[in-house]
Amino acid sequence: MSTSKVVIVGGGFGGLSAARRLSRTPGIMVTLVDKRNYHLFQPLLYQVAMAGLSPAEIAYPLRALLRHDSVEVLLGEVQKVNLEERWVQTEANRITYDFLILACGSTYTYFNAPEWEAVAPALKTVAQATEIRRKVFRAFEEAERTQDPKAHDRFMTFVIVGGGPTGVELAGSLGEITRFSIQRDFDHISPQNARIILIEAGPSILPSMTPALQDEAIRELGELGVEVRVNALVSMITEEGITAGGEFISTATILWAAGVAQGPLNRKLGVELDTQGRVIVSRDLSLPGHPEIFVIGDQAHYKWGAQGTPLPGLAPVAMQQGRFVAKVIRARVAGARPPEHFNYIDKGQMATIGRSRAVAMYKGLEFSGFTAWMAWLVVHIYYLIGFKNRVFVLFQWAWTYLTFRRGARLMIEKE
Amino acid sequence: MSTSKVVIVGGGFGGLSAARRLSRTPGIMVTLVDKRNYHLFQPLLYQVAMAGLSPAEIAYPLRALLRHDSVEVLLGEVQKVNLEERWVQTEANRITYDFLILACGSTYTYFNAPEWEAVAPALKTVAQATEIRRKVFRAFEEAERTQDPKAHDRFMTFVIVGGGPTGVELAGSLGEITRFSIQRDFDHISPQNARIILIEAGPSILPSMTPALQDEAIRELGELGVEVRVNALVSMITEEGITAGGEFISTATILWAAGVAQGPLNRKLGVELDTQGRVIVSRDLSLPGHPEIFVIGDQAHYKWGAQGTPLPGLAPVAMQQGRFVAKVIRARVAGARPPEHFNYIDKGQMATIGRSRAVAMYKGLEFSGFTAWMAWLVVHIYYLIGFKNRVFVLFQWAWTYLTFRRGARLMIEKE
Repeated sequence: MSTSKVVIVGGGFGGLSAARRLSRTPGIMVTLVDKRNYHLFQPLLYQVAMAGLSPAEIAYPLRALLRHDSVEVLLGEVQKVNLEERWVQTEANRITYDFLILACGSTYTYFNAPEWEAVAPALKTVAQATEIRRKVFRAFEEAERTQDPKAHDRFMTFVIVGGGPTGVELAGSLGEITRFSIQRDFDHISPQNARIILIEAGPSILPSMTPALQDEAIRELGELGVEVRVNALVSMITEEGITAGGEFISTATILWAAGVAQGPLNRKLGVELDTQGRVIVSRDLSLPGHPEIFVIGDQAHYKWGAQGTPLPGLAPVAMQQGRFVAKVIRARVAGARPPEHFNYIDKGQMATIGRSRAVAMYKGLEFSGFTAWMAWLVVHIYYLIGFKNRVFVLFQWAWTYLTFRRGARLMIEKE
Repeated sequence: MSTSKVVIVGGGFGGLSAARRLSRTPGIMVTLVDKRNYHLFQPLLYQVAMAGLSPAEIAYPLRALLRHDSVEVLLGEVQKVNLEERWVQTEANRITYDFLILACGSTYTYFNAPEWEAVAPALKTVAQATEIRRKVFRAFEEAERTQDPKAHDRFMTFVIVGGGPTGVELAGSLGEITRFSIQRDFDHISPQNARIILIEAGPSILPSMTPALQDEAIRELGELGVEVRVNALVSMITEEGITAGGEFISTATILWAAGVAQGPLNRKLGVELDTQGRVIVSRDLSLPGHPEIFVIGDQAHYKWGAQGTPLPGLAPVAMQQGRFVAKVIRARVAGARPPEHFNYIDKGQMATIGRSRAVAMYKGLEFSGFTAWMAWLVVHIYYLIGFKNRVFVLFQWAWTYLTFRRGARLMIEKE
């Protein structure tokens, strides 16, 4: 039997799930290409930004995860895919494939104002998370040492743009830090009086949740001192502050959690994309006209349900798609009949707001408060990859829960 | 009773010890100024560089350490001291003092070749440690993906400059990583065959230890694959490699652990400095002619012993000096007679080389191997500040000891 070479681009939830299902399969060799050397547990990245966790607690070396398997890991950023000759090109290597799985994830966009990025960092990478951490704790230090009341107010005002789960989680954590972690640390300022404003362009936060849960989230955020402003489109961001819904807010700290977009690769594929730039895939997640190429996770637009809306960019979607594609490839390599179309099993949605505060929906049921928070905790611990990280994170959370302390409150200097 | 204002510059071992001893003292208000918001447990920084620990495990927020005390913490870098008017100036504040304690530590020098810094990072800050980590693990990834044998050899060669404790610890950890942590992670390279070369300009490594321990250290390093070269002065460093002792070594990774120096502040004080730029202090650690100013730790040159050699730049020295200076100030404020001169209690010296490998000397006794390593472990855990960090680091080490795994093996992208 000849060997089929499967190349997977991206070691996130989708790519990693596919790699694991394809490993140790007779007749299949896997090469996983990623521009980073670690798998990142993205749903907890906001905890790194908010000093609750260290990067190593939510990131794990890909080589260690795929060590014993028939999987080669290669560092590199794929810059080109040649669909006809079947190879991908990184800055260092050309890799040929029999099957290709694209699982590159998504990135942030500042729409038509890329200059906002310098002022309002987004939360997608570990470096961005530590930069946000530095920025937030720097603001308190600046407020502490200034003698100018206007500067004080500006440093004590924090604006988060984007009312999706990430924006809600950032705002909630920030509320908790100011109210329960550092409220006694300073001599000249009162962190518990910090203004935290969550701004959403649309009519509601957490748009994929029910109105009841949206209201509950706003109520729980309010308990932590977070003001929520909806229907507030951002029109300007400068070092001085932000203009949203026509109103200017003087602030030194703006965090960006809005505007999902795709990297430059999709446009080079020459296939149909949706308005967000995602690849519109066939029923088996393959590229139309290319049954040997699959696109999964945030990079793919897969129509689902009665309305045919695209599946959301969630870890469970990517993981299920990774496993499905692995099954298709294994069947094809073995000469068996592959499954014809991908079925999504809805794992529900959740967003955490703070200690004992969260909202969740699962199969028509709605949860909030402590129950939702416990569910969130259990699910996230369960999925955190690597035994050590799981124990560490549990311990860290138990510690934070009991003491309200945040150990990772470091401003690592930029150099 | 009027209140005396004590300003401490620097939150390292010396400054923190002084701040703690001066806190909650009637008649004394303390302001601690540091350019970072955390106390760093410097002796373990090489573990961050070598992926054994995360930054938050060896760094602790100064505000959290000094929260309950009569101590104000202020972020800032002192740029000027006015000895006559008794104030210090940071980029944001002017702070007056009745007593001043300078505890700014030391920095690295590249002698007359500052351009080497871009190629050969030193290990002094957390940012430098994560940069070294990135560089080291990047080299293995580059070796893995190159097809050029010369490039492979260059990426698989690691040079550490400086045979003091930091250089020995870096070289030993690197030996251990390549032999026991990542030796099975790659498909195309054999990390256990990596060349690790420790270069020292002087006639021996660990110059402050006995010849027997120096030999033992060389033997233990050799077991981990580290070549030691003494009497090898570095004459050139470029992207291509390093020339030391007249020989060129092709390498992509050079780490700098040589050349201690002082920041720019000392030269502005207008007092006598030694050849390293340290302030030569009086018997009570005060600045000659200024009994209200003290200089401690790495920043000070305090003659000690029969030969009158300066005390080494070790944490116990700084801590004892911090406590001594606090005692002097407390006595003076209380109108009592202060102690006249500082007595150093020798706590010995140790350097760890790897798992179960270390050398240590204490009161004329010499230890090596497992015994020295256990002693090193106990001492470092004991001094690690903050209960949580202590438990965490213990757990992390136990894990690494049992599994040889290194969880913090992340290459955080530079942005």
